[in-house]
Amino acid sequence: MRDVYLIGAGQSRFGSFPDETYRTLFEIAVDEALTSIDSLERTDIDESFVGTLGVGGRQIGLSGPAVTEFAGIQGIPTTRVENACAASGYAIRSAVQAVKSGMADIVLAGGYEVMTDTSGDVTRYWLGVSGETEWERLAGTTFSGVYAQMASAHMERYGTTADQLGAVAVKNHDHGSRNPKAHLGFTCTMDDVRSAPTVADPLNLFHCCPTTDGAAAVIIAAPSVARELADTPIKISGVGAASDGVGLFQRDTYTSLPASRRAAEQAYEMADIGPEDLDLAEVHDCFAIAELLAYEDLGICEPGGAGELVESGATALGGDLPVNTSGGLKSKGHPIGATGAGQAVEIFEQLTNNAGDRQVDGARIGLTHNVGGSGGAAVVHLFERLEEVPA
Amino acid sequence: MRDVYLIGAGQSRFGSFPDETYRTLFEIAVDEALTSIDSLERTDIDESFVGTLGVGGRQIGLSGPAVTEFAGIQGIPTTRVENACAASGYAIRSAVQAVKSGMADIVLAGGYEVMTDTSGDVTRYWLGVSGETEWERLAGTTFSGVYAQMASAHMERYGTTADQLGAVAVKNHDHGSRNPKAHLGFTCTMDDVRSAPTVADPLNLFHCCPTTDGAAAVIIAAPSVARELADTPIKISGVGAASDGVGLFQRDTYTSLPASRRAAEQAYEMADIGPEDLDLAEVHDCFAIAELLAYEDLGICEPGGAGELVESGATALGGDLPVNTSGGLKSKGHPIGATGAGQAVEIFEQLTNNAGDRQVDGARIGLTHNVGGSGGAAVVHLFERLEEVPA
Repeated sequence: MRDVYLIGAGQSRFGSFPDETYRTLFEIAVDEALTSIDSLERTDIDESFVGTLGVGGRQIGLSGPAVTEFAGIQGIPTTRVENACAASGYAIRSAVQAVKSGMADIVLAGGYEVMTDTSGDVTRYWLGVSGETEWERLAGTTFSGVYAQMASAHMERYGTTADQLGAVAVKNHDHGSRNPKAHLGFTCTMDDVRSAPTVADPLNLFHCCPTTDGAAAVIIAAPSVARELADTPIKISGVGAASDGVGLFQRDTYTSLPASRRAAEQAYEMADIGPEDLDLAEVHDCFAIAELLAYEDLGICEPGGAGELVESGATALGGDLPVNTSGGLKSKGHPIGATGAGQAVEIFEQLTNNAGDRQVDGARIGLTHNVGGSGGAAVVHLFERLEEVPA
Repeated sequence: MRDVYLIGAGQSRFGSFPDETYRTLFEIAVDEALTSIDSLERTDIDESFVGTLGVGGRQIGLSGPAVTEFAGIQGIPTTRVENACAASGYAIRSAVQAVKSGMADIVLAGGYEVMTDTSGDVTRYWLGVSGETEWERLAGTTFSGVYAQMASAHMERYGTTADQLGAVAVKNHDHGSRNPKAHLGFTCTMDDVRSAPTVADPLNLFHCCPTTDGAAAVIIAAPSVARELADTPIKISGVGAASDGVGLFQRDTYTSLPASRRAAEQAYEMADIGPEDLDLAEVHDCFAIAELLAYEDLGICEPGGAGELVESGATALGGDLPVNTSGGLKSKGHPIGATGAGQAVEIFEQLTNNAGDRQVDGARIGLTHNVGGSGGAAVVHLFERLEEVPA
């Protein structure tokens, strides 16, 4: 099977945009992705995959073609992919398979979500409905509640503290304040976090990501295309994905996401890369506890070690392994269907040395980690900057 | 790129099943697909793709893992795919790419829909919402209305008659009456069709498919697996897909679906097969006019020739090229996300000589044609029975 490259990436600002639509946001992301590559035209794209949960935009079915056609990418195969908050992480996976299959040489993978428009029954109903239906959602549990249970379990089992959860927020807001596209681009102090109102104990407002509008898109290509078009070839060296019971109660553990663990193992094995090789990672911090679980599930530290790791500063800009340099879901924002592709946009900017005030010096290997629901699906990608595309 | 084979297929009955859920229906389809192959276990499956629009089941996000985990297929990558009524046709396309990519050897592709449970605002809202939003649905047009416009245009341009539309219904109900899994497994006469109440002029009740509950699943595999497990190797020789403007008003023509035409051209070219080589076809007859458009767009006859073709009996069982031997969407039923995979189930049964009273003698090459919305997406697959898997 042939190698696959990330050759371009773009995204809209993330935020609350009452004057934009799902289509215009997606078009902004596509425009930027294409602008990032000299001499690539819309008509060069062979196929596309679009991730969205669909809470906004009102185009409930067939929203993939609705956005690609509007963005001027016409007539090609377009497939909507959805795995809740991991929708566009999986869109990237599908794009990788399309290129590896030989059926396409240049593939667009992206996603969008419009979440701040809460008019209409369906939109309201959809916010937070990707949890398990019969035993969680209909019983009144929300995602905050489910992740709060995981946080409680982690605190009980490992002694993780509220301030360690808070350190995730302080770090990611600091990172996001350097990202002009972040939704909540302000900094915060530990005192701000401590005094925030409770959402679902032990999680408070600063332990939770916002609801956000936005879109992101990447261009994935065969080696021959990357050789011709990419100034800085970025190989997608590893891809891994796994499912699990959609309900938290269906799993053996509350202090790990087994799907993340399996997805990471696959990706590391495929790439022959280990967590010790990473220069940066974008992980799925929908809640502060989720970032701590990610450190442990991705092998960045031992189980139970995540609280101390974030407190040590090792995962902040300037540390050994900066995590969520974009600001993460917490500060950059979490437009559900756009999040996975947005993570890849950050890795692209970092590995091409275009990350401005948040640049990780000499970044060569990056990881993205995107979770659906409370862990019913996870997808991990590994990206590696090469000097040139091998012959 | 390596070849890909269809090695197993199964489906639930199609109908109205208030005592089943989206999960139990999907499990029935998976069970039957696995039973169709000796010595294949759930744990042998490497990856899965699940098509659904999501009108039923209430599991709005992450419904892929929700059904595969329930069906006992655990831990593997599962991706939900949605392109309205073409959801599981595209799931099959993704499965083909997964196998060709070398990332998986055995892939499940299926789909489901629960449509007859209309309790709840969301379910009601969703029925028929995959049309173009701003200019069609919110203006009051339904799918019946959009296809009625196509029927009117075809009648005006080519002289197609109401009885020619009716001949589609009479034929497909005759076929469906031989299919124990059909939703509307009764026969009808042309007089029944003529006297049916109008839905959207010129379409009446017998020109429209029902809303249906059901699920279908197929197993797609690499050559090495097919060589070991398939008694009758069925190669997926061609795959084609295309998008178009989601709104009918966005297209140049009302008498053709350009996406169908492009998808078919790709599939024929990849397979080096032409319409004259087909032994049978399952086409997307959501409305009678859609089957006539399919004849023309798939190259089975010239533009304008479809009315006469169906009247001649050539596309009935016993004719030159039987179309919709399963009963089609009209009689077998149209559980949106299950339809594309259900078409492949029929081709599998025909090419393995297991189609009972509706068997096409000596069938060797079959086609499936699955449309999303009113033509915003289309996907075509070509299946070919081989004597053996080539070395």
